[in-house]
Amino acid sequence: MPQVTLTLSDTSYPLFIDNGILSQAGELIKSQGISTSTPLAILSDSNVAPLYAESLCASLHSAGYERIRLLTVPAGEASKSLSTVESVCTTLAEQGIDRHSLLIALGGGVIGDLTGFIAAIHYRGIPFIQIPTTILAQVDSSIGGKTGVNLPAGKNLVGAFHHPRLVLIDPLTLESLPSRTLIEGLAEVVKHAAIRDADMLALLDTYTDAFRTLSFDTLRPILPDLIARNVAIKARVVEADEKERLDIRALLNFGHTVGHGIEAAVPYGELLHGECVSLGMRAALWLSTHRGSLPAEEGDKLLLLMAKLGLPLELSTDIDPALILQRTMSDKKFAAGHIRCVLLKSLGEAYVADTITVADLEAAIDTLYTPCLL
Amino acid sequence: MPQVTLTLSDTSYPLFIDNGILSQAGELIKSQGISTSTPLAILSDSNVAPLYAESLCASLHSAGYERIRLLTVPAGEASKSLSTVESVCTTLAEQGIDRHSLLIALGGGVIGDLTGFIAAIHYRGIPFIQIPTTILAQVDSSIGGKTGVNLPAGKNLVGAFHHPRLVLIDPLTLESLPSRTLIEGLAEVVKHAAIRDADMLALLDTYTDAFRTLSFDTLRPILPDLIARNVAIKARVVEADEKERLDIRALLNFGHTVGHGIEAAVPYGELLHGECVSLGMRAALWLSTHRGSLPAEEGDKLLLLMAKLGLPLELSTDIDPALILQRTMSDKKFAAGHIRCVLLKSLGEAYVADTITVADLEAAIDTLYTPCLL
Repeated sequence: MPQVTLTLSDTSYPLFIDNGILSQAGELIKSQGISTSTPLAILSDSNVAPLYAESLCASLHSAGYERIRLLTVPAGEASKSLSTVESVCTTLAEQGIDRHSLLIALGGGVIGDLTGFIAAIHYRGIPFIQIPTTILAQVDSSIGGKTGVNLPAGKNLVGAFHHPRLVLIDPLTLESLPSRTLIEGLAEVVKHAAIRDADMLALLDTYTDAFRTLSFDTLRPILPDLIARNVAIKARVVEADEKERLDIRALLNFGHTVGHGIEAAVPYGELLHGECVSLGMRAALWLSTHRGSLPAEEGDKLLLLMAKLGLPLELSTDIDPALILQRTMSDKKFAAGHIRCVLLKSLGEAYVADTITVADLEAAIDTLYTPCLL
Repeated sequence: MPQVTLTLSDTSYPLFIDNGILSQAGELIKSQGISTSTPLAILSDSNVAPLYAESLCASLHSAGYERIRLLTVPAGEASKSLSTVESVCTTLAEQGIDRHSLLIALGGGVIGDLTGFIAAIHYRGIPFIQIPTTILAQVDSSIGGKTGVNLPAGKNLVGAFHHPRLVLIDPLTLESLPSRTLIEGLAEVVKHAAIRDADMLALLDTYTDAFRTLSFDTLRPILPDLIARNVAIKARVVEADEKERLDIRALLNFGHTVGHGIEAAVPYGELLHGECVSLGMRAALWLSTHRGSLPAEEGDKLLLLMAKLGLPLELSTDIDPALILQRTMSDKKFAAGHIRCVLLKSLGEAYVADTITVADLEAAIDTLYTPCLL
């Protein structure tokens, strides 16, 4: 089965990817040396728990784990809050889930970030396992140790670096996703191709129809390797720059500078994270070709792929570009009037540019209101 | 000036101790390589801020720091909560205190634990400095990287290991403490003597009257060295076992097993932490002499010192011993009916005993209701 290992200075852990791996979770967890007497708590949400918690619990039971609790929070971003952290930690403590226990995150990005953060601070830190169930969580948010919750003042403003002991990725869980959630996750796959793996673009191009029509008979055989390829890209970047102190991990922010600005500017829930990243990548591609040295035809190739996947590339005029600009700038550092922004040198090769001006950014955002003619 | 360095595998930082050091805070912080362009946020409480925040700010200003914010929370244990964390982090974010900033804890144990925890999770971790202003914080809680807040289910149930960049200890701040708060902090000093430094007992014995009568003319010349001696004891223990995985850091829990049980059993605010530790040490001494091999006269020597300092050694019969036993046991692991408990082999030498039974513990708690005849 496809497997990636993430190795850091003080820890190392495997990420297993395979269709149906959820039903082997118990044995795989045991194989990591986690004693069957360890109390386990699964944290999931109201969408995912009804689909997969029973199967996970059965697998844990049959591997010999006896002390298993399941906690469910409401599905959605609102659960990524300190008040959810407080109520979950209180329940865990009351149920005897102490420093000798293990948490399991079963769900998408919200559950992974929330569970990881709770694991980082419950009794000053306990181990946890990621079982991501969306594309976005499987190729991106479950990997790399970033955990956290939102504040009223902004997303992910409190958090911790806390790595899981193990990541189990079952591509079969993607088959229950709404089409829009599946497609938005592909924005992070396209991003990986853009910054590190140009060859993956051709592969994605072959399957654009299958993704848009949810043809899992076609996708099922290729998803484990495709996901593993993305996991490996992210793992290698994280290994090179775990705490984002060099300019390496920052490359994963391709499309995210303007993307986050859009996400903060549009009314909550109107656009999904991956959709904002798709729009942000279009803006970054414009900057790469007009303010950098990316050949226009390479930028167009990427845009065409995103269009074929059904990722959004154009903004509604209902959304104020000035607000996007303001939100884009509000969480960034400006040095002498320049904003740091990830651009492409060529497909598969990214760099951090520090020469982009506010006027450049404004122009890039403006292009998002024009049709993407390919 | 007395100085201790705490050296861990991946970090090292100085602890400076001197009368009047608060007025040198700006220069000392700058000497640690913290740029004067760094935004600083001081977190303090409603008791301490009116006394020392102005002097601290003046020192920071005159060292060249220009971006200084002061946040004040209500004094008292109730501020050690996730809701305070949320409101402080929100205010910090709104005021531009981001990942490139530094927090300063100015206050006692509550402020130190709260600020350290906020520093651990704000923007996934920023640096901080401890300026402890109580004996308890100066010799114990500001040293060692344990940070955290309380949950309704129990004290310090969420937290993180996060070390300060620098600790500045000004014994002059002790002169504004109420007598009871000064004395309770001495329980941790007595504890250090009991587990690691029998010679310090004689020194303490010389100054029992001065402490009880708040004779700072007598105490002022000796406090910097006395505190530094305690800081060094704690620092050496933390260096040997940072994450409490061996049985070394656990030795600091001498008196704390029953002490925590008492703290959880009495109505909130009736007994201070150090007072509970004092009672817990009496229980641990009884176990050390009756179930271990500590000569009775050594135990009595320690009890006499505590009595002379005015530390409580006897419980009111209003407090139910069964409740203390239950609370003592509720946060401990029992292996085959035995509780792990720190005992003394001799004055200055402690060990973790794993042979104490529930009946032993019950008997030790019962002795706390009898007068301490010395």
